[in-house]
Amino acid sequence: MIIRNYHLTQSHDWSLLIGKGALGVLPRHISFRDYSSIVIATDDNVAPCWLSMVIKSFGKSGSVLPIIIPHGERSKCMQTVESILASLQSVGMGRDGLLIALGGGVVGDVTGFAASIYKRGIDYIQIPTSLIALTDSAIGGKTGIDFVESKNSVGTFYQPRLVVCDPMFLKTLPRRELVNGMAEVIKYGLITDEKFLGLLTSHTLDDMPWERVIDFCATYKADIVARDERDTLGLRALVNFGHTVGHAIEALSRYRVPHGHGVAIGMMVAARMSSQVLGLSEFEREKIEFVLHQFGLPTRLPKGMNVNAIIQKLGTDKKARAGKVKWVLLKKIGKAVPGIEVPGKVVKKALECLYD
Amino acid sequence: MIIRNYHLTQSHDWSLLIGKGALGVLPRHISFRDYSSIVIATDDNVAPCWLSMVIKSFGKSGSVLPIIIPHGERSKCMQTVESILASLQSVGMGRDGLLIALGGGVVGDVTGFAASIYKRGIDYIQIPTSLIALTDSAIGGKTGIDFVESKNSVGTFYQPRLVVCDPMFLKTLPRRELVNGMAEVIKYGLITDEKFLGLLTSHTLDDMPWERVIDFCATYKADIVARDERDTLGLRALVNFGHTVGHAIEALSRYRVPHGHGVAIGMMVAARMSSQVLGLSEFEREKIEFVLHQFGLPTRLPKGMNVNAIIQKLGTDKKARAGKVKWVLLKKIGKAVPGIEVPGKVVKKALECLYD
Repeated sequence: MIIRNYHLTQSHDWSLLIGKGALGVLPRHISFRDYSSIVIATDDNVAPCWLSMVIKSFGKSGSVLPIIIPHGERSKCMQTVESILASLQSVGMGRDGLLIALGGGVVGDVTGFAASIYKRGIDYIQIPTSLIALTDSAIGGKTGIDFVESKNSVGTFYQPRLVVCDPMFLKTLPRRELVNGMAEVIKYGLITDEKFLGLLTSHTLDDMPWERVIDFCATYKADIVARDERDTLGLRALVNFGHTVGHAIEALSRYRVPHGHGVAIGMMVAARMSSQVLGLSEFEREKIEFVLHQFGLPTRLPKGMNVNAIIQKLGTDKKARAGKVKWVLLKKIGKAVPGIEVPGKVVKKALECLYD
Repeated sequence: MIIRNYHLTQSHDWSLLIGKGALGVLPRHISFRDYSSIVIATDDNVAPCWLSMVIKSFGKSGSVLPIIIPHGERSKCMQTVESILASLQSVGMGRDGLLIALGGGVVGDVTGFAASIYKRGIDYIQIPTSLIALTDSAIGGKTGIDFVESKNSVGTFYQPRLVVCDPMFLKTLPRRELVNGMAEVIKYGLITDEKFLGLLTSHTLDDMPWERVIDFCATYKADIVARDERDTLGLRALVNFGHTVGHAIEALSRYRVPHGHGVAIGMMVAARMSSQVLGLSEFEREKIEFVLHQFGLPTRLPKGMNVNAIIQKLGTDKKARAGKVKWVLLKKIGKAVPGIEVPGKVVKKALECLYD
């Protein structure tokens, strides 16, 4: 079991608990009895597999109210947030209540957002169950919803008290969701450590050492967040590698393209631009494509998606300044550089190379 | 002109600009040109009187988009927040945009809330126009909406960059709104300084030295907020004197009872309890009633309002812990004490004394 405590200057401190059996030792790390009421939010995919087992692990099962939302990106909306807020209000939860998110990125993001605005902020815990959430989205306190077809365009920075990463949850995860999550995992290898990428490629999804993989990704993300909580120093931008184009593709497909697929394609675009702007070698670019293929991720634009539409969408990205995007690109595998401006022509060319 | 800069540990620093003509020197204190887009939110009462004049004062009138919401407490809802968010998104505002609130408490609270969640937080400025907002609600970064009939139950702590308190706006304020605002002004006298209360009682609404009054209240509030931004030390609770019962009465009347009236009645209840629990003299209690009367504020419960319904509502207050309210009471005029537990019987008795 790995336990790490993070100190944040702008928020309260928080802890990260990683490893098989992390869920079982939860009551040692959080005093459930100190909360006047506890609500756990999850989705209709996760609930049948894990909800009752997780509630039992709190050792305070009588008084935990579950809220079950429909699974999928369509639930990442204001309506879901309002339904969670209404539930909290209906049990008379005060500022001394606790909200728990059990699920993937969507559950984590909407639940964290609800926690951040209910009574101007209550404590919450993230228990991620998908590979994306275990390695990325549950860590860092970015909460939010999609608003008028713009991904994550409304939300807050709001740190949980605790993030519990237990690889056990991967047992019931559908294979397509493992593939989806591998995009984020590969991302960590690309931006930070070629050796870690080597670890990935020497395994398949069936024999992957998940505990080690989750530890590497979650700890890296948590360290970055501790140094740049509000995304102002450019450090935190690093974990956004591949996400700017990825988000645009997701939104344009009306979220039919899953997050991991969007990020995979986004990383391919970034690799092309990296060759043009930072001299990433063709060999390494092909290696990136190969790794994505190895784990079943797409490396071409979805059929029918228009490059100009993607370019237009980029300007509305949350991180754009005056419509200009600062890109995270690769000097080489394992060495990412944030804050790069790229001429429009180069962006367009990189996208056009990926027409199927 | 009074300019004060406040340092906050949990958020960015902010400035308070107080005095006649404060609006005119605004461009010296904020660089409007640094923002890629500017949106100003106001209501349909304030807009005809002040909107164009205020926009002109920015010296960048061409590119400021106004959003006008219906006036009144009913606008303090998620729907209004969503309409502001949609407007920001429609002009393609990035994180480098600026949102300005021009109006009373409702406009300030919903606009601040929208600023705090749009793209996980953008800069905003408060330009309060009502007496309540100038002396109280525009300062301190408490944003929010009423949710399912619970006052301010959803929102954030989110500091503006700048609060501009110009007494000029009081010129067009209806008399009933001046009366309403006097409840907050009297509150500051009661909790902090008997001499300030003396200043108030030696004037009428027609010859009140507003600049001095606003300076006293706004500066006091800002100092408290600087020491206890997130309401965790009990200091900030002081400015909540009279508000717990006040909010309950407002909500039970479905916001037909204006905020200042609720606070006035709440202060009367708190004064009764103060006599019982902290030995506030009968003479001072009568003085409080006299001052409220002098400025046309109510000192009895609204007709038909039931004491038991108020008591039930108190348990759901945002600050209640396990259904228990910690009260702010007076030892004497000018000396408030936070965090007092009061037996249910005493609360009930104090409320029953105010049946009309």
